[in-house]
Amino acid sequence: MNPQRHNELDAWQAARLLARRELSAVDLLRACLDRIAEREPQVQAFVHMDEAAALAQAQALDAGPWRGPLHGLPLGVKDLFDTAGQPTAYGSPVYAGHRPAADAAAVVLCLEAGAVLPGKTVTTEFAYFHPGPTRNPKNLAHTPGGSSSGSAAAVADHMLPLALGTQTAASVIRPAAFCGVVGFKPSLGRVPLAGAKSLSVTLDTVGMFGRCVRDVALIGAVLTADARLDDDSALSAPPAPRIGLCPTPDAVQMDADVQAAWAHAVRVLAPAAAALRDAPWPAAMPDLVVLQKAVMTFEMARSLSHERTAHRAALSERLRGLFDEGVAIDGAAHAANLHATAAARRLAAAWFDDFDLLLAPSALGEAPAGVEATGDPLFSRGWSLLGLPCVHLPFARGRNGLPVGLQIVGRWGDDHRLLAAAQWCMARLTG
Amino acid sequence: MNPQRHNELDAWQAARLLARRELSAVDLLRACLDRIAEREPQVQAFVHMDEAAALAQAQALDAGPWRGPLHGLPLGVKDLFDTAGQPTAYGSPVYAGHRPAADAAAVVLCLEAGAVLPGKTVTTEFAYFHPGPTRNPKNLAHTPGGSSSGSAAAVADHMLPLALGTQTAASVIRPAAFCGVVGFKPSLGRVPLAGAKSLSVTLDTVGMFGRCVRDVALIGAVLTADARLDDDSALSAPPAPRIGLCPTPDAVQMDADVQAAWAHAVRVLAPAAAALRDAPWPAAMPDLVVLQKAVMTFEMARSLSHERTAHRAALSERLRGLFDEGVAIDGAAHAANLHATAAARRLAAAWFDDFDLLLAPSALGEAPAGVEATGDPLFSRGWSLLGLPCVHLPFARGRNGLPVGLQIVGRWGDDHRLLAAAQWCMARLTG
Repeated sequence: MNPQRHNELDAWQAARLLARRELSAVDLLRACLDRIAEREPQVQAFVHMDEAAALAQAQALDAGPWRGPLHGLPLGVKDLFDTAGQPTAYGSPVYAGHRPAADAAAVVLCLEAGAVLPGKTVTTEFAYFHPGPTRNPKNLAHTPGGSSSGSAAAVADHMLPLALGTQTAASVIRPAAFCGVVGFKPSLGRVPLAGAKSLSVTLDTVGMFGRCVRDVALIGAVLTADARLDDDSALSAPPAPRIGLCPTPDAVQMDADVQAAWAHAVRVLAPAAAALRDAPWPAAMPDLVVLQKAVMTFEMARSLSHERTAHRAALSERLRGLFDEGVAIDGAAHAANLHATAAARRLAAAWFDDFDLLLAPSALGEAPAGVEATGDPLFSRGWSLLGLPCVHLPFARGRNGLPVGLQIVGRWGDDHRLLAAAQWCMARLTG
Repeated sequence: MNPQRHNELDAWQAARLLARRELSAVDLLRACLDRIAEREPQVQAFVHMDEAAALAQAQALDAGPWRGPLHGLPLGVKDLFDTAGQPTAYGSPVYAGHRPAADAAAVVLCLEAGAVLPGKTVTTEFAYFHPGPTRNPKNLAHTPGGSSSGSAAAVADHMLPLALGTQTAASVIRPAAFCGVVGFKPSLGRVPLAGAKSLSVTLDTVGMFGRCVRDVALIGAVLTADARLDDDSALSAPPAPRIGLCPTPDAVQMDADVQAAWAHAVRVLAPAAAALRDAPWPAAMPDLVVLQKAVMTFEMARSLSHERTAHRAALSERLRGLFDEGVAIDGAAHAANLHATAAARRLAAAWFDDFDLLLAPSALGEAPAGVEATGDPLFSRGWSLLGLPCVHLPFARGRNGLPVGLQIVGRWGDDHRLLAAAQWCMARLTG
């Protein structure tokens, strides 16, 4: 293979070559760094890079024993994760030049498995709405989505094969949709959050990006310590799933591009699925979007109490507004909201008696024009609140030639089945 | 009042005097500092103190407007919470001299409400078993319990009226029991964990210590933003609760002192309670102690991945053992354990259809002799796993004259009712 194209390898393919020493970690890294050098001035996916440290890591991996499933794979780390070796600013001038004492747990788990860390990727301000400089690599005039903007853009643009993100509302699924990559938000609570800036203990989830389902399965297995997520036989010959069509009560917000993707998906999946029919929205289900907003607003205003009280002038107006709204919510109302969340999660479990996955929209449409906003998180708020695993499947193009896709949602803890089903779906959606 | 005795005031009494400006924050702080100067060489409750900063805080409070419910109250902060103004070592030499960039969210919420921070209190190593130097103020030859050792000891010894702790297994209730103070672990998820060292996202809970129920109600209302927790009318005339006797499947581990406390409680509470009878242990309930250990072991080994991989030589042998055990647990087994935890939580909710509170043991007996260990967490592991609010009630003495008591456990989210019931119980238990 032409050395400058190693950066276009899927992570799982590169991992096999690296394990057989048919590809060196240094060559793979150099191809990625070349791509970054070429594209970063436009895309602006990174807030910090340390090429020398990454090269030293790659050289050590090439010289030493096989370290694990991510041996030699360059990994982008959203700048919401602490890193001891590189500054960590959480997307805010408040933390410019901040040097954490320790790597976040998810970062260490990847390092233990052999990942190489070339740099930190752009996050919106504390993973809320105020955007960073990143542009959508598929069209620089459009947003990449947020809050994991740099991670999604870097993977989409072949700068890196894999990247870490986080999701509290829609921060993995939405940028994956806008950039046209696979985004995976595992079941709530399966991946350690230590060292990721805490926004909402009820919602925060570590997620990841790759260019195919196998790639997020590879890193997902590492982060959950559950080898079933990357089971070669399940991913090679996934069983036909029972599919529930679940456009949510906000289905009317899907634009024509997403509707077309939806129709295509139904058409190609129906003949092969074990079942495919409407998944009824439970009558007793509370308004998940309203509930997610209330829970996140209360918790962010309190989790970020230091920033709220000591650095108000350095915050965006939108974040100050969130904080003002959050501190005004009474703790009694919040406890009632957490009760309602628990009830909604119980109710959601029943879907999976009938279905292996729910098919649902990821975003309202293509990535909007402009980089002053990161798009609407509407279609992921509910799934984030329910804590269910989600995979964004990129398989279509919209009116502007930008990526469009859908997400699939699984039962809590069935991340391995959801990934196999994602593989099954993608084979048909893109076939 | 004799100025050197201000430190013996209950927090709620001091708060009223401070609000009326009948007591100054400086005088209260000086009384506490005098007590600390007298006793700290023996008790060793603190890892760091900053008297000058605390005095400046107190002076500013005295000179300014009333700040909130904790105006002028000195607060001990377990050294598991980040503080920007004082070093934070999490009970480990790994972090000697570490200066976090921000205060933990719970600390800021207390500061916003007017608390004064004289110092950081001793925690065991990363809140696990390896003890710090703290001794039980009621008998220096005995352990204060852990992991919130310094917070419980400082409050028990009238060094401070209030202190913050955390509980993952038994780290609030056990030291409260051993030192003879009121310990309050709120419902899981109601108090932000940001900036508290993350051990286990499934279990970690911020807790607090005071010398009476009203005191933990005062600070509990601040931390949950729920004024119902400190409702004067409910605490002044609490309704008679329906009491379920729930010694747990490990009841046989209660020693004679705890059995005597139990018998006393049943004798004095039964005539006045709205109901008092055995609360059946559900047949379908999994072994909560085994489950809690497995969940905590898996999650601690991963949450503390940086310490596990980069600082192994600086860890205690017991913590290294926990990590070795934890990394050997498969993520698939952990997901099953989290499923079982969710099922156990649903099952536990049914108790509170019949009872307002469960009466349960807090510890096996008095604080054990010696400071090489912090006692057995057995009787709190299950309640921690269930995420239910718990209050330790100190009301008896054991064979060595050391404190003995029991805990009461409430419905998730009913922290306000549990505190009122605690007040009701204490009036009768100590009457």
